[in-house]
Amino acid sequence: MNLCLAGVLDADTLQAVRTTLAGADFADGSRTAGWHAAKVKHNLQATDDGAAQRVQQALMAHELFRAAALPARLRAPLFSRYTTGMGYGRHMDDALMTAGGGASALRADLAVTVFLSEPASYDGGELVIEGPGGTSAYKLEAGQAIVYPATTLHRVADVTRGERLAAVLWVQSLVRDAARREVLFDLDTARRGLWDKAGQTATSEFDLVTKTYANLLRAWSEP
Amino acid sequence: MNLCLAGVLDADTLQAVRTTLAGADFADGSRTAGWHAAKVKHNLQATDDGAAQRVQQALMAHELFRAAALPARLRAPLFSRYTTGMGYGRHMDDALMTAGGGASALRADLAVTVFLSEPASYDGGELVIEGPGGTSAYKLEAGQAIVYPATTLHRVADVTRGERLAAVLWVQSLVRDAARREVLFDLDTARRGLWDKAGQTATSEFDLVTKTYANLLRAWSEP
Amino acid sequence: MNLCLAGVLDADTLQAVRTTLAGADFADGSRTAGWHAAKVKHNLQATDDGAAQRVQQALMAHELFRAAALPARLRAPLFSRYTTGMGYGRHMDDALMTAGGGASALRADLAVTVFLSEPASYDGGELVIEGPGGTSAYKLEAGQAIVYPATTLHRVADVTRGERLAAVLWVQSLVRDAARREVLFDLDTARRGLWDKAGQTATSEFDLVTKTYANLLRAWSEP
Amino acid sequence: MNLCLAGVLDADTLQAVRTTLAGADFADGSRTAGWHAAKVKHNLQATDDGAAQRVQQALMAHELFRAAALPARLRAPLFSRYTTGMGYGRHMDDALMTAGGGASALRADLAVTVFLSEPASYDGGELVIEGPGGTSAYKLEAGQAIVYPATTLHRVADVTRGERLAAVLWVQSLVRDAARREVLFDLDTARRGLWDKAGQTATSEFDLVTKTYANLLRAWSEP
Amino acid sequence: MNLCLAGVLDADTLQAVRTTLAGADFADGSRTAGWHAAKVKHNLQATDDGAAQRVQQALMAHELFRAAALPARLRAPLFSRYTTGMGYGRHMDDALMTAGGGASALRADLAVTVFLSEPASYDGGELVIEGPGGTSAYKLEAGQAIVYPATTLHRVADVTRGERLAAVLWVQSLVRDAARREVLFDLDTARRGLWDKAGQTATSEFDLVTKTYANLLRAWSEP
Amino acid sequence: MNLCLAGVLDADTLQAVRTTLAGADFADGSRTAGWHAAKVKHNLQATDDGAAQRVQQALMAHELFRAAALPARLRAPLFSRYTTGMGYGRHMDDALMTAGGGASALRADLAVTVFLSEPASYDGGELVIEGPGGTSAYKLEAGQAIVYPATTLHRVADVTRGERLAAVLWVQSLVRDAARREVLFDLDTARRGLWDKAGQTATSEFDLVTKTYANLLRAWSEP
Repeated sequence: MNLCLAGVLDADTLQAVRTTLAGADFADGSRTAGWHAAKVKHNLQATDDGAAQRVQQALMAHELFRAAALPARLRAPLFSRYTTGMGYGRHMDDALMTAGGGASALRADLAVTVFLSEPASYDGGELVIEGPGGTSAYKLEAGQAIVYPATTLHRVADVTRGERLAAVLWVQSLVRDAARREVLFDLDTARRGLWDKAGQTATSEFDLVTKTYANLLRAWSEP
Repeated sequence: MNLCLAGVLDADTLQAVRTTLAGADFADGSRTAGWHAAKVKHNLQATDDGAAQRVQQALMAHELFRAAALPARLRAPLFSRYTTGMGYGRHMDDALMTAGGGASALRADLAVTVFLSEPASYDGGELVIEGPGGTSAYKLEAGQAIVYPATTLHRVADVTRGERLAAVLWVQSLVRDAARREVLFDLDTARRGLWDKAGQTATSEFDLVTKTYANLLRAWSEP
Repeated sequence: MNLCLAGVLDADTLQAVRTTLAGADFADGSRTAGWHAAKVKHNLQATDDGAAQRVQQALMAHELFRAAALPARLRAPLFSRYTTGMGYGRHMDDALMTAGGGASALRADLAVTVFLSEPASYDGGELVIEGPGGTSAYKLEAGQAIVYPATTLHRVADVTRGERLAAVLWVQSLVRDAARREVLFDLDTARRGLWDKAGQTATSEFDLVTKTYANLLRAWSEP
Repeated sequence: MNLCLAGVLDADTLQAVRTTLAGADFADGSRTAGWHAAKVKHNLQATDDGAAQRVQQALMAHELFRAAALPARLRAPLFSRYTTGMGYGRHMDDALMTAGGGASALRADLAVTVFLSEPASYDGGELVIEGPGGTSAYKLEAGQAIVYPATTLHRVADVTRGERLAAVLWVQSLVRDAARREVLFDLDTARRGLWDKAGQTATSEFDLVTKTYANLLRAWSEP
Repeated sequence: MNLCLAGVLDADTLQAVRTTLAGADFADGSRTAGWHAAKVKHNLQATDDGAAQRVQQALMAHELFRAAALPARLRAPLFSRYTTGMGYGRHMDDALMTAGGGASALRADLAVTVFLSEPASYDGGELVIEGPGGTSAYKLEAGQAIVYPATTLHRVADVTRGERLAAVLWVQSLVRDAARREVLFDLDTARRGLWDKAGQTATSEFDLVTKTYANLLRAWSEP
Repeated sequence: MNLCLAGVLDADTLQAVRTTLAGADFADGSRTAGWHAAKVKHNLQATDDGAAQRVQQALMAHELFRAAALPARLRAPLFSRYTTGMGYGRHMDDALMTAGGGASALRADLAVTVFLSEPASYDGGELVIEGPGGTSAYKLEAGQAIVYPATTLHRVADVTRGERLAAVLWVQSLVRDAARREVLFDLDTARRGLWDKAGQTATSEFDLVTKTYANLLRAWSEP
């Protein structure tokens, strides 16, 4: 599931995040990569609590994100900047990450990139994901995001003009298996459709689908 | 799930089975029990290919049985006769049974008792099942059947008057876990309801529930 | 497993809880139901830290409850009051609940109702549970409780006379699958019997059953 | 995984299959669809043992197909013909299919379409697959095939000119879960690379990866 | 579990097998190895239906073997001969093997070596198994056997004097996971002890352990 | 896996721990055993925060320990002293332990004994572990440790001369199943070998093995 989300950051939030990051302290990104990914990571990176909180809140308020990702915990966003000539070679994200602040390790089920630069303002910089059936490249509008399985090899193509700014973060899902998350998403979509079609009341079919949704979530979730 | 099924054998089939069994050769039932169950089994038992086939066909033609049990294979029915003073003490069915005829072992997920005697014609003889939440006793009309998990301790109470005739058999289900079978049964019931309510046409909710039913059956079935 | 527990609240505790609740602030119960259950929930509801703590402690001190439910966490009890004409239609409990106080979500594996009113003091108000094999109705003595799988559709029948007071809460079990909990309960019962029969000493059979109990708990528990 | 396979049928085999099918007896395809898919299936369909065997053998001889699909059993191919105006609406394949000839049911994990008509010879007729991340349409060269998860909703777009001939079949994989199949495919690819790079001899890394491949196949396969 | 079995072949059977093999046609063993194991396999190998059947029957009649291995299917034994200078380097057995005679593939969960030569009659030739906790070497009496997990890297040390004759075969177990097989073996041992201690009658502890044994076998077996 | 670790405590740390324990308050060890293990436990036991912290840190700094055990949490070490005549009979460790300090229960997957006395200074006192394939006895150098599955029955042989001092603790692993931990350990070993052989750069084989390691850790870990 490479799921593109429209309208994650509205214009005001986007502007606020950009302004904050303009004053942030960006450093060599290879310092936060795993021992093997460090060799291929060529970018700049910053953290900022205020900007991170805005991005996290916007994402958690996005209904499609919540229904599809079933997030249990988010890792605080990192902000990455690629200037001309920078890129991030083919790599695999670590499965377990420190979540910061003394919390226990976070299992990275899904990765999220929130694009912060207008695509017309830079060349290159596509997020390239090697899925099981082929390779896809993504370059979204500023304020849009892509959620994709952290189980894939992926890379950021070299930026050949301008600057690419993005927020990257990871999600530990309540349901770690992607096929099971899809089952729950399908059932949730179905029962919301049934509820609306029946004038917001519970038919016996609605009850059975709701029962199944709850019981599969019981069987599969790790709260 | 202790599921009572009405109308498994119609009057003609019931009569035919009884007539066949009247001439069958009944022997000490303890010979077919496992090494430990033999000590508590006091009944008479017969096999008969013709009668067995009638019972098996009637069961496989019963729609509720198929939807709830999702049968992969049936063990050929045994016919048991309890005369006054006979009973079958508390015991556990073997998990794996020889299915006869050189076939590989059958996993007994569910047990079935088809009652062949009118309940008024004998005293005692209840099938007593120790469920996780308590003990239930069953004494059904002739031609009716009970399907219950082979995972329970159970017994047949002593017959104190008359004679109790029954067919007993076991089911290897396509889906071995009872909770998963219930999920599939609920979804199947829901989608058939949706199909009928929409005038036998596929709504998007029907498609999603059907997709989920098929994908869970893929994930869980052992054909 | 619909398991009825005798003697959860002794007479003094029952009286203390009732007295506390007499002064509590009961409000429309539909406010704490999920988006779809709210439509069928017609009762009054209160929270009270002191009364909740008494109920929780009494439950955790009940040996049969602990052995059968293997509780990891309890949700703080809610107190519900049904006066004449009130009831709670057929519904499904949410699989994941906020546990309050900043704690992470609680997975509701089992539901518990502790009856606080004498059954003779009201008509109706049965707890009706749709199990896989049929429907059961429960109306217990004051101070008794029923533990049942939160995986069932259930309802509270309309109260037609008097008032029904009860505590309701949910259990996240160390072992989420009901069939596995039953295996552990059986083995625990067996080894305690062996221990006592052998004069509180370890036979080799006791050691093997204890080893198996511990290893299955290792394999299945989510502490 | 929507995996396109080049060179499944060579020119001679393709010609032989086409010639055989020219004389085959095509009938209304809705007769072999499930009760709900029948309503949206508008095509013609034929079976032919000789043509089926050629397609099956060609597929099983295709190394990439074997490595990626880990086939346990194939359902005998059906041949479908869409003339102008025909199509197959959105539907879900059954999870369990009769495999013919008295064999036990086949679990359809993967679906395969082998294209038999040149794409320039007809308009429309794309195979449209709704993946978790979006919808993809496929129209391959004659003799090429696509393997895709039977877990998806899919359809064949209406043919608006010419005729579309194809073979369709299903695969029960040794490994039913798609994510696990991908793990095995990755490890198999890695160890073949290691073997070749080391001059076709076993390094200790080769031994460990081979050990892991074999042990995961032991843990996950259903032979 | 590296389990040594005494008395698999009695003196007569051992003699009969040896006599048969004296006239058998031994060929280069590398022809039956997988593509990568062939490079390190230096021995001679023969098949013989009569000798194979004797070994298989003796093994299936060995109670400890059946209880510990829970065999579903055996691959027909191969007979291997190592003369001076021969050995079989470190390798991994294939997870899936052709079982011969058109049968479906056999999953090799356990490997068995039945020693046919007296240990004093040859030097070297130890079976060396790399377990997770260290390496063990085995050289048993003629007629004895070792059962070990096929999940291990293992080898046969070079023979430096005399000749080593052995039968090797593989077991597909009813229960593929080794830890689960151990749980079942422990419970089976416990309940047989309880049965004998109670004078071959069923106590309530016996019933509970038997129930658990049967239900875990139901949950875990692949008949 | 009974894994012996060399060099867990260096000479200075060992000395410091011994000195601290010389002044510690040792009490009857049976007080911390489970209800059934207490009967066979005859030793003295102490806790000491400083000594415990030294042992824990030394263990967590041991690379082989981390790679093989994949520790999520450690229970604080207990220090046990066996003087002449003391021993600890055959027993099973509890599956769930209080971890102290209000933390939630710890699942004991692995047990660790760090030997603190020189083996020549006492007779007896071997740690005897009943593995599935036989019984092993361990008596290591001071400062060495053994890590073994808490799933085994084990005992400490009676000390017949001198005094045996040891630290004992338990590990909740990120990966509870031993066979899965071994798969991860094998892959981790393989990819570190590949990295070094290729001059610390990522080959495509390294990428695939790393991808698989990360994805299996995602699928199996419980952070």
